Amino acid sequence: MMDGAAASGDFVQSLARGLAVIRAFDAEHAELTLSDVARRADMTRAAARRFLLTLESLGYVASDARVFRLTPRVLELGFSYLSSLSLPEIVQPHLEALSREVDESVSAAVLDGVDVVYVARVPTRRIMSVRITIGTRFPAYATSMGRVLLAGLGEGEADAALAASDLSPLTERTITEPAALRSELDRVRAQGWSLVDGELEPGLRSIAAPLHGRDGRVVAALNVSTSATRDSVEHVREAYLGPLLQTAAAIDAELRLV
Amino acid sequence: MMDGAAASGDFVQSLARGLAVIRAFDAEHAELTLSDVARRADMTRAAARRFLLTLESLGYVASDARVFRLTPRVLELGFSYLSSLSLPEIVQPHLEALSREVDESVSAAVLDGVDVVYVARVPTRRIMSVRITIGTRFPAYATSMGRVLLAGLGEGEADAALAASDLSPLTERTITEPAALRSELDRVRAQGWSLVDGELEPGLRSIAAPLHGRDGRVVAALNVSTSATRDSVEHVREAYLGPLLQTAAAIDAELRLV
Repeated sequence: MMDGAAASGDFVQSLARGLAVIRAFDAEHAELTLSDVARRADMTRAAARRFLLTLESLGYVASDARVFRLTPRVLELGFSYLSSLSLPEIVQPHLEALSREVDESVSAAVLDGVDVVYVARVPTRRIMSVRITIGTRFPAYATSMGRVLLAGLGEGEADAALAASDLSPLTERTITEPAALRSELDRVRAQGWSLVDGELEPGLRSIAAPLHGRDGRVVAALNVSTSATRDSVEHVREAYLGPLLQTAAAIDAELRLV
Repeated sequence: MMDGAAASGDFVQSLARGLAVIRAFDAEHAELTLSDVARRADMTRAAARRFLLTLESLGYVASDARVFRLTPRVLELGFSYLSSLSLPEIVQPHLEALSREVDESVSAAVLDGVDVVYVARVPTRRIMSVRITIGTRFPAYATSMGRVLLAGLGEGEADAALAASDLSPLTERTITEPAALRSELDRVRAQGWSLVDGELEPGLRSIAAPLHGRDGRVVAALNVSTSATRDSVEHVREAYLGPLLQTAAAIDAELRLV
């Protein structure tokens, strides 16, 4: 945070800390006491209390005896982004159709720095150890959608993104050598899709294709994910690549119209 | 905002104004200049600049020459709520199946004050004049999901919610008389579902059923919506009520397990 705004005195600390209070809540911490919030947002109880009372008076937090929880109004913040993006609305019906066709979970994601961020998803069964929702982030270098998105950047920007990534082995199979990743991105760029086998999480296989904006640049990625116990790598390619590429082409055609 | 927090000096104005800057962005205003933000969030350009720079240094805003836009990181704020709620994850596969069966858009919503707020949705075609996404709000009194949710409150709380609502005629058909609404809520409570015909928007018909938590209280509502040009009121009831109630019962069974 010690960038321009912070250094120049333009940084509004109260805003940063208030947002940290909102982020203190999650699936495992849906209801928090004042002390919980203070600890999780790394501030004093007095400060946490002022932020919670402010959020409560704005309608973003509700309290009940000693516990606080977020209200549905918080959705307005995240969805001011989603509603500004026509992408989720365009891809959603295509995701539904593709998921029906392949009977597997399908997702769409965009790149944000070195991460992929899910913007639309049709889950069929839970195969990841973590719950994936809209807004979930994963490191781009270890995921099929991430590789498609990095490949779409062009070499210079892709190299910069890899250099900024913490290339850690998430499983035994994760490619972490920059040179190996660069040649994998070259391959993905040339063939137009990416298949990742157990590099993000053991037993998780996924295949992704890029989505293009009107100017031909890669704006998002689409994937089908499955489990290694159900589908071999060969089956993933043979059964899912065709429907995936057809769906991507149908979405691209619509994205050219917006 | 002149409630406890504001009156006692505990209100953090900078947090409120920073959140207003985030909300200044929406579908029609995805990219804003500094002046746009200042005008839409009702603050000086100098203040808008400090908030935008702070949000940019936190990764919630990106800028490009003269324009600012939100980044996908903003989703983390809204989804700290959604991920704290197991409801969307539980209902989503049921919504998919119901939408497939009836070939219409289906949604789930919760009550927040006098509004319904969408928490899950499977759209099939666009029939509303406004785009509905997760986080979209409508006045509860004029919607099928709202009536199911208000009926679930019990009479005292439902009366209070009606008293707090701005009961305006959104179409020629909207019921706005408190006595008429109360008797409609009695009917909905007794029959266990609600059908609303063109009261929110002309030509929009929807039928909703309640979802119950482990303690038997109504926690959310589920609906099927369609257009008057496609389906008569009789067809909505005959074709959709059965699948709707079956889906609601299946979701209730799962909600009892969480």
